[in-house]
Amino acid sequence: MSCALTQLPEWAAFKDAASQSSIDVSKLRIIQAAGLSLDLSGQRHSPVLSEAAQALLAARNFTQMRERLLTGGIANPTEERAAWHTALRAPTPNPEVATERQRLNAFVRLADSERRWRNIVHIGIGGSDWGVRLAVGAFGYAGTWRQVRFVANIDGHAIQGGLAGLDPHDTLIVLASKSFTTAETLQNGQRALEWLQAAGVEDPYKQVVAITARPDVAQAWGVPAAHVFKLWDWVGGRFSLWSAVSLTTALAVSSDVVAGMQAGATAMDNHFAEAPIEQNAPVQMALAGIVNRNALGYGSLNIAPYDFRLANLVPYLQQLEMESLGKSVDLDGDTIDIATGPAVWGMPGTDAQHTFFQWLHQGSDGAPVDFIVCQAADHGWAEHHQSLLANCLAQREALLNGKTYDEALKECLDAGAAQEKAEQLARHRVHPGGRPSSLIVLPRLSPYALGALLALYEHKVFVQGTIWGINPFDQWGVEYGKVLAKGIAAQLSGQVPADGTAQDASTAHWVKTFAKSLKG
Amino acid sequence: MSCALTQLPEWAAFKDAASQSSIDVSKLRIIQAAGLSLDLSGQRHSPVLSEAAQALLAARNFTQMRERLLTGGIANPTEERAAWHTALRAPTPNPEVATERQRLNAFVRLADSERRWRNIVHIGIGGSDWGVRLAVGAFGYAGTWRQVRFVANIDGHAIQGGLAGLDPHDTLIVLASKSFTTAETLQNGQRALEWLQAAGVEDPYKQVVAITARPDVAQAWGVPAAHVFKLWDWVGGRFSLWSAVSLTTALAVSSDVVAGMQAGATAMDNHFAEAPIEQNAPVQMALAGIVNRNALGYGSLNIAPYDFRLANLVPYLQQLEMESLGKSVDLDGDTIDIATGPAVWGMPGTDAQHTFFQWLHQGSDGAPVDFIVCQAADHGWAEHHQSLLANCLAQREALLNGKTYDEALKECLDAGAAQEKAEQLARHRVHPGGRPSSLIVLPRLSPYALGALLALYEHKVFVQGTIWGINPFDQWGVEYGKVLAKGIAAQLSGQVPADGTAQDASTAHWVKTFAKSLKG
Repeated sequence: MSCALTQLPEWAAFKDAASQSSIDVSKLRIIQAAGLSLDLSGQRHSPVLSEAAQALLAARNFTQMRERLLTGGIANPTEERAAWHTALRAPTPNPEVATERQRLNAFVRLADSERRWRNIVHIGIGGSDWGVRLAVGAFGYAGTWRQVRFVANIDGHAIQGGLAGLDPHDTLIVLASKSFTTAETLQNGQRALEWLQAAGVEDPYKQVVAITARPDVAQAWGVPAAHVFKLWDWVGGRFSLWSAVSLTTALAVSSDVVAGMQAGATAMDNHFAEAPIEQNAPVQMALAGIVNRNALGYGSLNIAPYDFRLANLVPYLQQLEMESLGKSVDLDGDTIDIATGPAVWGMPGTDAQHTFFQWLHQGSDGAPVDFIVCQAADHGWAEHHQSLLANCLAQREALLNGKTYDEALKECLDAGAAQEKAEQLARHRVHPGGRPSSLIVLPRLSPYALGALLALYEHKVFVQGTIWGINPFDQWGVEYGKVLAKGIAAQLSGQVPADGTAQDASTAHWVKTFAKSLKG
Repeated sequence: MSCALTQLPEWAAFKDAASQSSIDVSKLRIIQAAGLSLDLSGQRHSPVLSEAAQALLAARNFTQMRERLLTGGIANPTEERAAWHTALRAPTPNPEVATERQRLNAFVRLADSERRWRNIVHIGIGGSDWGVRLAVGAFGYAGTWRQVRFVANIDGHAIQGGLAGLDPHDTLIVLASKSFTTAETLQNGQRALEWLQAAGVEDPYKQVVAITARPDVAQAWGVPAAHVFKLWDWVGGRFSLWSAVSLTTALAVSSDVVAGMQAGATAMDNHFAEAPIEQNAPVQMALAGIVNRNALGYGSLNIAPYDFRLANLVPYLQQLEMESLGKSVDLDGDTIDIATGPAVWGMPGTDAQHTFFQWLHQGSDGAPVDFIVCQAADHGWAEHHQSLLANCLAQREALLNGKTYDEALKECLDAGAAQEKAEQLARHRVHPGGRPSSLIVLPRLSPYALGALLALYEHKVFVQGTIWGINPFDQWGVEYGKVLAKGIAAQLSGQVPADGTAQDASTAHWVKTFAKSLKG
C-alpha cells in the first residue's frame, strides 16, 4: 500500500459515482451466496458506480489481498501474522487443526455418553464469549439439558450470579483465553476454582477445561494436559468462535451444530473466493456500506435481526465490525482523512420497533439498517411467523418509501380530525423515506445458515478494511486502557500511594475516593 | 413556542460559547443529586458557556416547561395530555394512584404469604418490558425463588422459549399493555393461555394478570376484574416502569425494591425542580449532550455501566432517549434544521472494552461516553471491585488524555522494538484523546440509587427536548410501520392477493415469496 486512499483517482471517481447514484425502487437486486439471499435493492446502485467500484478494488489490490487472507499469508502486518480463521473451519484442515477438532469431539462424546456436566460455566470475554453465546442462544433458546452460564465481566457480581444455584459436583468450568493472561478470565476462573474447593470437590482441576494458544501457561495454572485445547497465534480473538472455544457450544447444543456452522462458513468462504465482483455478496455489501458512510455521511449501522434467537448477533457484530474497523491510520501508519468503520448497534425486531425505530424513521440522522430474517420458522404458529415477516418488510418499506405530508394529512382527515388539527398533526407524521437498508434472508436458522451469515460479515469487514487501507486484524487501542488500569489498580490497593498525581483532576479525585472506600 | 431554535440569538451565542470552550482537565466539576455524584469534568465548560446556557434556557421557557411537566399540565401537546410519571412515584400520590398501589401490594403480599407463583411469565414489549427487565436483572442477578421469564417479541420462538420447562400449574402470566391492543402482547398472551389450557389448568384466566389503561378491554379478553391493574392515559409507555407494570418486579425482588426506586426517583424529581441551574444535574447533563451533538458534531452517545447488573440499562435508555428525541420537527411542526437526539448504544464494562472500545479510542468518529459505576459492591471480592473501578477510571483517562506519538514510540522502544519498527508501530498506537465523557457514581446499587439514576436521564431528555423544541412524549414514527405491517400481513395470509402492487420491487418480491412459503 503506497498511496493514501483519498489521493487515488479511483476513490474520487467512486465517490462521484456514489453521489450521483440513487436507490431505484423499481429494480430487484438480490445476490445468492451459500444459501443466503442478500437483497441490496434498498441501497444505491448504478452501472457507473459498479464500474467505479471494480476500478477502486483493483487499485486497492483486492484480489491479492483476498488471496493472502485465504491462503494464510501475513494478512495482519502490524502483528506480523496470518488471520487464517478460514483454515479452522475448512472441511479438510491441516493436521494440527484436525487433531484438536478430534480431541474436542472425543471430549464431548465421552461427556455425553456418561451424561456428565449438567452445568457448564463458560468463562471468557470478548471473542472468547460472544460467538459461543450467539450459537448457544440461537440453537438452545428453549433450554438444553445442560445449563450453561456465561461469565465475562471482572465485576464480581458476574461470577457470583454465574455460579449461584449450581451443583459444584456436576459443573464443568471452561476457561477460554487466547493468551491465558486475560485478567477477567483468570480472576473469574480463580473464583470458580475456590467454589469447587469450598464444596469439597475432590480434584477441582479435573472439572476445568482450558482453550488457549498457550497450553504451557494453562497447565502451569493447573489444568490437566488432557483438558487443554489449543488454538493458534494466527487466530484473532474475534474469530475464535471457529476454534475449540466452541467446546461449550458442542456440549450445549451438540458437535453437529459446530460442524454445521463450519460448513456454512466454508461455503461462504468459497463464494467470496470465487464469485465475480458484481455477484460477490461480501464485496457488494462492503461497497454499499462505504457508499453509506463516505458518500451519504451515515455515522452508524443498525443491525435488525427479525429473529428472537439472534439477540447476541448484535454484540457479536459490534466486536467484529468496530474492533476491526475502528481505526484512523492506514497500513503505513498515515492518518486516514475520511470516516472509517461506523458505530454498530441494534436489537431483534419486533422489540427494536418498540425501542428505537422512532429514531430510525424520524430522527435527524437515521442509519442504514441490515434486516435479517428466516423464511421458515422452527415453531408451529404460522400466525406469529407471518406477523414477524410482515413487520420486517413493513419497516423496510417505511424507511425506504417514507410518507409525504399529503399522505399524512389524508390519514389524519380520514381518522376524523378537523382540518386545522389535521394539518398540524400531519407535520409530525411525515417520514422522509430514502433511508437505505439491506435484507438478508436465511432459509431457516440452521447452523449452516448462521455460519454462512457470520462469514458474510467477516468478509465484508475485510473488504472494507482493504478499501480504507486499514489492518482489520489488530486492536492496538485495546492495550492502552489495560496499562492505565494496572497503574490505577496499584493506587487503589495502596501498593502505590494515591497521591493525586494523575493526569487530570477528576481521575485523581476518584482514585483517592475509591481507595479510601475500598479500605473501609 | 413561536420561534425556531436556530433563529434565536441565544442559540447562536450558546453555540459560539461551546465552540470556544474546552475541557479543563485541571478542574473538578461534580454535582451531587439525590445521592448520586455526576462528574462533568470531562465535558466542555466555561463561564461564558454557562451564562449562554442560562440565557438559552430562559429563551426556551425552561422554567415554565418544567413546571408544566411536574404539575401534570399538557406536556404532550400533540397527544393533548400530561406526561405525569412523576405523580406515579410521589410519596403521597393522588387517591387513584394510591389505590392501585395498595391493590398491587396486597396482591404481592397474598402471593408471597401463600408462596404461590413459582414462575412468572411477563409478557409486554418496549416500555412494558425494559424497565421491569432492568429492575429484575439489577436486584435478582443471582436468581430469585420465583423464576421470571420475559416474552416481548412477536417471533414465536420467544414465547416457545419463554414457556419451555415451566410448570403451568404454578405459573402466573402477566400481560402488560397500555392500550391492551399491542399485537405482540395479545398474541403471546393467547399462546400462554392455550398452554395453560393444554395442561389442564382448571381456570386459566385466574392465572393471568393484566396491567393496562383499558381495564374494560382486558376484562373483555377474560382477565378477572380483581386481576386487572390500572395505569392512566397520562403515563407514557416508556415511563410505565413507575406504574403497576412493576408488579413483576415486586413479585420477583419484593415490593420494597419498587418503593425504593420510587423514593430515589422522587428525590431526583425534587432536585430537578429546585436546584439552581448551575448545580442542576439533569440540566447540566442535557447541556453537555447538546454541546457534544451540535457544537462538536458527535452522532451517538455510548452508555457504559461498569456494573454487570445494569446490562438492561442500555436498551432502557435507548428507548427513553431515542423514542423521545428521535424527531425532526418542533412543536409547531416546523423542520428542525440541526441534529437532534443521538443514536444511543452501549454495554457494561469491562465486556465493552473487549467488544468495541477500540472504536471509541481510535475510530474516526468516537462518541461521548457516560460511565456509570457503584462505589461499593454487593459481593465480597475486593480485588474484583478494585479492578472494575480501575478499569472504569482508566478508560475515561485514556479517552480524555490520549497518548501521543512520542509516548507511543517510547513505549515501543522500551518494549525492545528496533527503532524503525518502533516508529512504524507507534503510529498505530496513538490515541487522539480529548474525547468527552461523564461519570456517574452511585454509592451502591440500591433501588433508591437506580431510581434516581433513571429519573436523572428522564429529566435530561426532557431538558434536551425543551431546548431543541421537540415533544419528547409522542412517537408518531412508530405508528406508520404498524399500519404497513397490517397490509402486508393480509397479503401474506392470502386474505388480500399478493399481486406485486407494493410500492417497490423488493417488497413485492418478498411478499410473494413469503406468502408462498407460509402456505407450503
